[in-house]
Amino acid sequence: MDKKFLDRHISHSFDNEIETIITQILEMGNIVEQQIVDSVKAIISTNKELAQKVVQVEDDVDMREVRLDELCTEVLACRQPAAFDLRMVLSATRIIRDLERIGDEAQKVAKMAIRLEKKGAAPAGYEEVAHMGGLVQSMLSSALSAFSQLDVTLALDVAKADKKVDRELKSAMRTIVNYMIDEPKSIKRAMNILSALRSLERMGNHSRNIAEHVIYLVKGLDVRHSSIKEIASKLAE
Amino acid sequence: MDKKFLDRHISHSFDNEIETIITQILEMGNIVEQQIVDSVKAIISTNKELAQKVVQVEDDVDMREVRLDELCTEVLACRQPAAFDLRMVLSATRIIRDLERIGDEAQKVAKMAIRLEKKGAAPAGYEEVAHMGGLVQSMLSSALSAFSQLDVTLALDVAKADKKVDRELKSAMRTIVNYMIDEPKSIKRAMNILSALRSLERMGNHSRNIAEHVIYLVKGLDVRHSSIKEIASKLAE
Repeated sequence: MDKKFLDRHISHSFDNEIETIITQILEMGNIVEQQIVDSVKAIISTNKELAQKVVQVEDDVDMREVRLDELCTEVLACRQPAAFDLRMVLSATRIIRDLERIGDEAQKVAKMAIRLEKKGAAPAGYEEVAHMGGLVQSMLSSALSAFSQLDVTLALDVAKADKKVDRELKSAMRTIVNYMIDEPKSIKRAMNILSALRSLERMGNHSRNIAEHVIYLVKGLDVRHSSIKEIASKLAE
Repeated sequence: MDKKFLDRHISHSFDNEIETIITQILEMGNIVEQQIVDSVKAIISTNKELAQKVVQVEDDVDMREVRLDELCTEVLACRQPAAFDLRMVLSATRIIRDLERIGDEAQKVAKMAIRLEKKGAAPAGYEEVAHMGGLVQSMLSSALSAFSQLDVTLALDVAKADKKVDRELKSAMRTIVNYMIDEPKSIKRAMNILSALRSLERMGNHSRNIAEHVIYLVKGLDVRHSSIKEIASKLAE
């Protein structure tokens, strides 16, 4: 994050607290990004050990959420920040929550991998999982960069990418449902892949949320419930 | 809410702001509760008009979320609340978000009702939707009462009820998947009912979240990621 921002404060301990929050959010973000990569790899290569790793890491992610939230509350109570500082702390609490939710969805994908390892492969959808997994990982990575660089243009790109993920899900669902109709015996296994795809779509939504929190942080604009066109025009004002 | 709480503040305008936040959350909560009732009725009775009403009301719910969030941010910036007051404002921002998500899921159920009206009835699952709908509505209603009365025992009941909703979803999914295997032609319609059931389960999760925010508000305890047993023992301390 821009050093100038951190140099503005008279109280150095306040700077330290904010810097700790930022660093820890980026750390938590990296862990969650790895959760996406691992859960997708686990389901595609039917790797039970990797899936179990994702499930185990989830406890660490949950603890990080609780601890970071406590730190944010302390800063609000003791420092009573205003303007950009207040938006920084509020955005932080929101970003933490979305990161935790992404970890939660990665855990669900990992659990589907464990089930498929028992039941045998799904009839279709692996390519789609790999493709959507890549898109979603890149969205989260960009959302975290947008946060650390206070880059609203990059944040807008993340919101745009979410539309693509939605379209991918719809197309993948059509393919898989057609397989289910042709091979009713494969339905239960196919449902696990559908569930993994839906989790990936929700990870995309949460990454978009993070990007929207960055826009709020930098510009003070609440762009939730706004279309891409509306966000772009608000940012151009 | 207990009048004593509101009488504590020296600044009457601060009391007014907090009272406005509470009143508006309860108002938003009532609208969202009606969204649950209407979306469930729309899907069960294939009532397209009612489904469209749910979709339309969603804009109002979104606007309320944004406005209430702005009000909370203003209170944080101008009043710099501490202790219980800070927890009240922070809980408010979280409750608002969960309410908006419940409205979002109700809108999804309503959209499934519109699809089923076009495609013809689903092969199974209507009873399950009615049953889960009733459970989830009662969870939200209790969570809102727990908030307005600062009642942690009632909040704990809501968390317990969420377990029941999870079990209901699993059992309903098994029934519907078996229908799908027997009647592959009905798969697409059955998927819409499954999707509605999943939305109801998520509404239950969000109602549980609201109950957890109430426990945080009253007791200052972060009980996210805690089991019912852990929450109960923390509350008994």
